[in-house]
Amino acid sequence: MPDYTPTRYAECANAIAEAGRDFGARGWTPATSSNFSMRLSDSRIAVTVSGRDKGKLTAADVMVCDLAGNAVDTDARPSAETLLHCQIYRRFPDAGAVLHTHSLAQTLASRIYAPVGELTLAGYELLKAFAGYTTHDARMQLKVFPNSQDMHELARLIDAWLDEQPVTHGYLIDGHGIYTWGKDMLEARRHLDAFEFLLNCELELRKMHR
Amino acid sequence: MPDYTPTRYAECANAIAEAGRDFGARGWTPATSSNFSMRLSDSRIAVTVSGRDKGKLTAADVMVCDLAGNAVDTDARPSAETLLHCQIYRRFPDAGAVLHTHSLAQTLASRIYAPVGELTLAGYELLKAFAGYTTHDARMQLKVFPNSQDMHELARLIDAWLDEQPVTHGYLIDGHGIYTWGKDMLEARRHLDAFEFLLNCELELRKMHR
Amino acid sequence: MPDYTPTRYAECANAIAEAGRDFGARGWTPATSSNFSMRLSDSRIAVTVSGRDKGKLTAADVMVCDLAGNAVDTDARPSAETLLHCQIYRRFPDAGAVLHTHSLAQTLASRIYAPVGELTLAGYELLKAFAGYTTHDARMQLKVFPNSQDMHELARLIDAWLDEQPVTHGYLIDGHGIYTWGKDMLEARRHLDAFEFLLNCELELRKMHR
Amino acid sequence: MPDYTPTRYAECANAIAEAGRDFGARGWTPATSSNFSMRLSDSRIAVTVSGRDKGKLTAADVMVCDLAGNAVDTDARPSAETLLHCQIYRRFPDAGAVLHTHSLAQTLASRIYAPVGELTLAGYELLKAFAGYTTHDARMQLKVFPNSQDMHELARLIDAWLDEQPVTHGYLIDGHGIYTWGKDMLEARRHLDAFEFLLNCELELRKMHR
Repeated sequence: MPDYTPTRYAECANAIAEAGRDFGARGWTPATSSNFSMRLSDSRIAVTVSGRDKGKLTAADVMVCDLAGNAVDTDARPSAETLLHCQIYRRFPDAGAVLHTHSLAQTLASRIYAPVGELTLAGYELLKAFAGYTTHDARMQLKVFPNSQDMHELARLIDAWLDEQPVTHGYLIDGHGIYTWGKDMLEARRHLDAFEFLLNCELELRKMHR
Repeated sequence: MPDYTPTRYAECANAIAEAGRDFGARGWTPATSSNFSMRLSDSRIAVTVSGRDKGKLTAADVMVCDLAGNAVDTDARPSAETLLHCQIYRRFPDAGAVLHTHSLAQTLASRIYAPVGELTLAGYELLKAFAGYTTHDARMQLKVFPNSQDMHELARLIDAWLDEQPVTHGYLIDGHGIYTWGKDMLEARRHLDAFEFLLNCELELRKMHR
Repeated sequence: MPDYTPTRYAECANAIAEAGRDFGARGWTPATSSNFSMRLSDSRIAVTVSGRDKGKLTAADVMVCDLAGNAVDTDARPSAETLLHCQIYRRFPDAGAVLHTHSLAQTLASRIYAPVGELTLAGYELLKAFAGYTTHDARMQLKVFPNSQDMHELARLIDAWLDEQPVTHGYLIDGHGIYTWGKDMLEARRHLDAFEFLLNCELELRKMHR
Repeated sequence: MPDYTPTRYAECANAIAEAGRDFGARGWTPATSSNFSMRLSDSRIAVTVSGRDKGKLTAADVMVCDLAGNAVDTDARPSAETLLHCQIYRRFPDAGAVLHTHSLAQTLASRIYAPVGELTLAGYELLKAFAGYTTHDARMQLKVFPNSQDMHELARLIDAWLDEQPVTHGYLIDGHGIYTWGKDMLEARRHLDAFEFLLNCELELRKMHR
């Protein structure tokens, strides 16, 4: 017996599909990339099926997994990166939604800052969009991990780093994109919006003659 | 008894919601930022409720305040920056609408020009979009204030500056965005459109090898 | 008695309004700028009324003028630049539509190339979009005139230049925007599309480290 | 008798028209440029009619050609570049769709890399969007051919190059745009999406001060 209601499932599947269509319209999900999930219960998540066009998602492109990333009651295959979603749900009991997108700014920032391993966001009013930030007069470090096709290796790297972070809301993977999360879809989307905006700010400033 | 008609309120709430949706579609209101208001009467304004997604505004996301920024007949909380809207309505009896947005160009220009405190817009045909400007052969100074989470401190800085300006239509706050206004929503939107365009011009020119 | 049919007028007014909405959606008509016209007959044109939001045009925002730029059978005021439209219709008997827009790329190119007075477009496949061009292996000079609020002065400058051009499809005005035309609205729009694309190419190339 | 069903034709014509509208909305088909095709059978393809606005395509803007590029059962004229589509269908029996677009990034990359004749895409997660690529840790060479108005000459150049490529999914033509293909429209669109994204990455990186 599922430990979540059909209504909760429908709610999550619809919220995921709507997010995908909105992000797709902004060009953040090129070529079937990106994946999104929401927590259904203590042991289950709803996550996008692998390989679908994220700009045209419907609730039928969403499936159920356990917190180890195994498909539950379906033959569908979840996104390869589902393990990274599960890692967040296991570590952060309050995390309700995880978003992985692949915008131009996210990919560019990941490539430029990969050699130093992180970038710093400071002095922006929009830092207040992140849970726990109440002033522009703050600094946020955004970590950049090297890319890997081995999700277990990637998860180990991320785990070691998360062990040392008191408060964090996302990370980049080199040449790939961003992962961010929040207590619910609304907060996760606010975090994603803010990261996307601030990464664009940092990249644009690099183009200007000052 | 309100000193404005229900029709006037509905008109303002709808105009504010429409403006928010239009600005949201252009990416000027990331992560629930930005706020908008219109004058209802000599003593009341309609202003956006704090924390709403400005790209999906409806008339239900608008509330009434007095000119000191206090909520009137509602438990809703107005945007933190409502004080800065009230300042404009108190100083300029003809001001009918105030717009605060948070586009990439506004944020970037504020960061680049904050050290010198202002930027100059000159020689553009679009200067004629500003009330009182009749030729491209003009210069407009756009002030950049340091950011602060203390709205009273910010308001004092702005007041001191406004005391010395014969004609002005807006200002930037560092790392934050723009404030602009007009006699009605149409004029305020025309001013915002023109500022956004001209800031983009200035920023793009900085990227080119000349 | 008008020397054009009501059907022809409706056709032109609708084509102008549709063009305005399309250009507005692409951000080429900021702050009520830009104006558009079509030839109705040997002595009359349909042209946009001054000051309207070009992104929300309807057929009701279009009026009739004679070829000297005088309003015909209406109290509406045509755009200040109507004289420049009339100049094209008088010189080129085959011109059926004139478009003046105000995109970021048009304004930026006008400012950058104003000191030398022109820019050269060469080697692009899209040159074939211009009437009379059949290969990418061609050069097109795009003239940049200084801006002026005196339309008669501007018209004189343009006339002197047109006297020396065997084939030309448009020009820029510094800090302002582009004028282009064609035998009908379809061709004028194709020319505008091509100019906008090629100006963006030239500007983007200036931003890159080569 | 056609060797394809009317249903197959309708399917292809609709898929081509939908692709054109989507690409047009993203600005990849300026001024009636670009053309698209799908394989109907061993000896026939469906291809766009010459000179139509690709952003407003309907099934009526699609026609049938044989694999030598000759129109079949119609007076319509196929795009001048139909020969280049046919070349792909003849060489690759699995190719089901060919897309030629003309975005800003495609044109810019073609001009910048034409002198060296190719560009390298490496280290991007999105390389996995290409059939046969299973890791970001790969290199793809994208060839740039000089432009020509002689399609037979261009086809000879491309043939000589294809003879030496084990796996390839597209090429650029200088000042012109991209050709890409796939086993069906879905795969061809995924390839086009990935090329467009990766070209934008490479161009943006050239604008930044590193």
